Amino acid sequence: MAQFTHFDAEGKARMVDVGEKSITAREATARGTVSMRPETLKRILDRSIEKGDVFSVARVAGIMASKRTGDLIPLCHPLSIAGVQVDFMPEVVKEGETVARVQIEATVKTVDRTGVEMEALTAVSVAALTLYDMCKAVDKGMTIEQICLIRKSGGKSGLWERKEEGT
Amino acid sequence: MAQFTHFDAEGKARMVDVGEKSITAREATARGTVSMRPETLKRILDRSIEKGDVFSVARVAGIMASKRTGDLIPLCHPLSIAGVQVDFMPEVVKEGETVARVQIEATVKTVDRTGVEMEALTAVSVAALTLYDMCKAVDKGMTIEQICLIRKSGGKSGLWERKEEGT
Amino acid sequence: MAQFTHFDAEGKARMVDVGEKSITAREATARGTVSMRPETLKRILDRSIEKGDVFSVARVAGIMASKRTGDLIPLCHPLSIAGVQVDFMPEVVKEGETVARVQIEATVKTVDRTGVEMEALTAVSVAALTLYDMCKAVDKGMTIEQICLIRKSGGKSGLWERKEEGT
Amino acid sequence: MAQFTHFDAEGKARMVDVGEKSITAREATARGTVSMRPETLKRILDRSIEKGDVFSVARVAGIMASKRTGDLIPLCHPLSIAGVQVDFMPEVVKEGETVARVQIEATVKTVDRTGVEMEALTAVSVAALTLYDMCKAVDKGMTIEQICLIRKSGGKSGLWERKEEGT
Amino acid sequence: MAQFTHFDAEGKARMVDVGEKSITAREATARGTVSMRPETLKRILDRSIEKGDVFSVARVAGIMASKRTGDLIPLCHPLSIAGVQVDFMPEVVKEGETVARVQIEATVKTVDRTGVEMEALTAVSVAALTLYDMCKAVDKGMTIEQICLIRKSGGKSGLWERKEEGT
Amino acid sequence: MAQFTHFDAEGKARMVDVGEKSITAREATARGTVSMRPETLKRILDRSIEKGDVFSVARVAGIMASKRTGDLIPLCHPLSIAGVQVDFMPEVVKEGETVARVQIEATVKTVDRTGVEMEALTAVSVAALTLYDMCKAVDKGMTIEQICLIRKSGGKSGLWERKEEGT
Repeated sequence: MAQFTHFDAEGKARMVDVGEKSITAREATARGTVSMRPETLKRILDRSIEKGDVFSVARVAGIMASKRTGDLIPLCHPLSIAGVQVDFMPEVVKEGETVARVQIEATVKTVDRTGVEMEALTAVSVAALTLYDMCKAVDKGMTIEQICLIRKSGGKSGLWERKEEGT
Repeated sequence: MAQFTHFDAEGKARMVDVGEKSITAREATARGTVSMRPETLKRILDRSIEKGDVFSVARVAGIMASKRTGDLIPLCHPLSIAGVQVDFMPEVVKEGETVARVQIEATVKTVDRTGVEMEALTAVSVAALTLYDMCKAVDKGMTIEQICLIRKSGGKSGLWERKEEGT
Repeated sequence: MAQFTHFDAEGKARMVDVGEKSITAREATARGTVSMRPETLKRILDRSIEKGDVFSVARVAGIMASKRTGDLIPLCHPLSIAGVQVDFMPEVVKEGETVARVQIEATVKTVDRTGVEMEALTAVSVAALTLYDMCKAVDKGMTIEQICLIRKSGGKSGLWERKEEGT
Repeated sequence: MAQFTHFDAEGKARMVDVGEKSITAREATARGTVSMRPETLKRILDRSIEKGDVFSVARVAGIMASKRTGDLIPLCHPLSIAGVQVDFMPEVVKEGETVARVQIEATVKTVDRTGVEMEALTAVSVAALTLYDMCKAVDKGMTIEQICLIRKSGGKSGLWERKEEGT
Repeated sequence: MAQFTHFDAEGKARMVDVGEKSITAREATARGTVSMRPETLKRILDRSIEKGDVFSVARVAGIMASKRTGDLIPLCHPLSIAGVQVDFMPEVVKEGETVARVQIEATVKTVDRTGVEMEALTAVSVAALTLYDMCKAVDKGMTIEQICLIRKSGGKSGLWERKEEGT
Repeated sequence: MAQFTHFDAEGKARMVDVGEKSITAREATARGTVSMRPETLKRILDRSIEKGDVFSVARVAGIMASKRTGDLIPLCHPLSIAGVQVDFMPEVVKEGETVARVQIEATVKTVDRTGVEMEALTAVSVAALTLYDMCKAVDKGMTIEQICLIRKSGGKSGLWERKEEGT
């Protein structure tokens, strides 16, 4: 059975040695959702159509945070990110709905000894926090939901894909 | 109607001037949940009972991240945190359940010109990411759910509390 | 005559003690220019009109850098920034010109024991470097010019304004 | 025609994927100038002759900043710097001149997938800001001028050298 | 005779170019001691037996600091750490002793162009500082002693081991 | 009896709330020693007399590290440092001695709700690590010794001074 690799036999936390792992192309995609009042999303979209700023600021925050993952997550290996992409997919708000959503997706690539799952998840998390920050003056009840790994490839364990629920 | 304060009249992002706000005691509590396979939670708890390390590492990560909020969230004011507390509340796993959960709660206090909502949400997010990191070797499908503000107090807008859904 | 306050009597660098200075509202504005080929500016503007991204990314970089000034400049006091604004003013490119320019202006405010001149200059510098980074694939010869303090107010030394050259 | 690589087809900012680029030795040299009152330069030199501190502090600041380039410039790839050198070349001040200058030159080397132009430009910029900080008590009008890339080598695009103006 | 490699022929500090060094597996172990009143150590141990927190927090701090070595030590090359381990070995306190000790040992591994001596020494130093911080309310006289390199291997200079004193 | 304030009643680590503490002038002085071979110290001094660089680089590193204390030590409060001074006192090496020493002393001041003991100890530690880094090519056996608090003043607990041993 798989082990908690971040702990040694005595249960002490460590940054596990990856020096013997091979350097390969690796990629990970994570996703998350921010739910909010439909009026909040309308405002974001009104502003974005004109100026692009709300998603642009959150995108920059997500990209920058992915570069700092090893600095934030204690046992995570620092690695050299080769590429990052962060996308925002607002849902269309339909008449009568009480909740609207923006989906955030981040894909991170590297050519290194460990995977970039944490980098992709961190990019989504900080992009979501930044959306919250920029909209909190109008909607403190916004909620960050369902941050999860969608897919990873490369390395010894190869491809992993999230099974969609309810399918 | 409330405004997106992080943008000026032309739609340009800015760090809004809080120099005229008064320095008062402020506090914020945020919460989030990490869902996982019941076996994963059992392992975390087995380990925690003996050694305390899983939650201890995630707690340190959350506390340290709260101090770096102004460095991660582009338009967030840097402020001097007076106190931080991060708690983990694992659910009891019942027979036959396919999902288990750990609830994370962070409370941050300051005496400053702006609130600490972002600091509390950042502490919860990074504690959750750290749990994911430490358990991802055994359960890549773990999901971070429902990160939201529970309560904030202090400042001009005073007390705000989240309305519980379904009640 | 004024002294190099960052050195003691023996010439050793130090962070000078500002503990006895009074806490007052302080503000500083700095400016700088990035010169480039007219085609480069046209592209930036074409893109900005549609999407806003070039200046938006550089603005976020400038704002975030101003918060890290005390971390970059060795003898600079860390302080709590109350507000930051970064603006870009592209020149109109006229027929036949071989150089085009974007002026960058940053204004930083605080209520603290030291001024924010370095924070404003750092915001301008990093916004300029970010413009360079985003356009360097098309114009490596871009030059960052005339970064200087325009105005500062507050504190014991009060108002200072740059004398315009040639006037 | 060359493209703004930091944006995708829809104009969204991204950290472009460099995973397929080859790892080669790369080098970049950037330069900039700080202009000041002749008395300010005289003081810097008097102090430097005795103690070396003014340029020494600014040199350390420039070297340290070059290591943090990927943390400051949003879409810049983090990379492992192999070597950094920062030099200061004060002009001789002649009788009757009203402006004196210190030229700053930084050379950065790496063996990686992307170039170090931004690292060299960042080293010059932060060294210049540090000079300003250390002398601002005596000369707030100091100006940072002409920060530009002088030369880069390595990588697919190979050698690039700045054409000297007026020659 | 060996040279101070961090200075050029004119005595100016630089980050020496390691681009031509070969990438090999490298490892370093450093050690240090924190001395304290026996009652302080008893309390740490009482707490650790139950909860594990004192050493767990200091261990996380040491691991995280080792990843930031290149950011703290001006002329140190940033490198990608492959693994870190931090251990605490409290001495048994005997009747009548007035001083108790906790030994800290850190081992860092990399596959890179430079060694990880500074990373191991930084991990020990920050773990020791964190122990001090957590216990300073009860014992301000705690002392950090004998931080030194024990062993390094890999690279051109190969194996180096500290000669034990008094043997 | 004094408590480990960084843990709550259940033994969980926290950043203790200092919001009710009063803002007062506080100061702390820490000291440490780096021991080395006499030839190493002679070289440092030869260089320093000419150029000042060895101690100058280590001084800058110590000052910069003191500003990042809250970022390095997990449960330490971030605070606004008002002043920092770092001094190096090399011992005179006498004929026949096999060990030489440089004493490092750092004094940090603030006007805040918590003391600056950790900031002073961190400045000494990082200055010592930097000395090691710059001299390790010639003397890997250098040892960092006796880092301790010498004196602190201000705050509710007032003045504390280290009792000299052997007196």
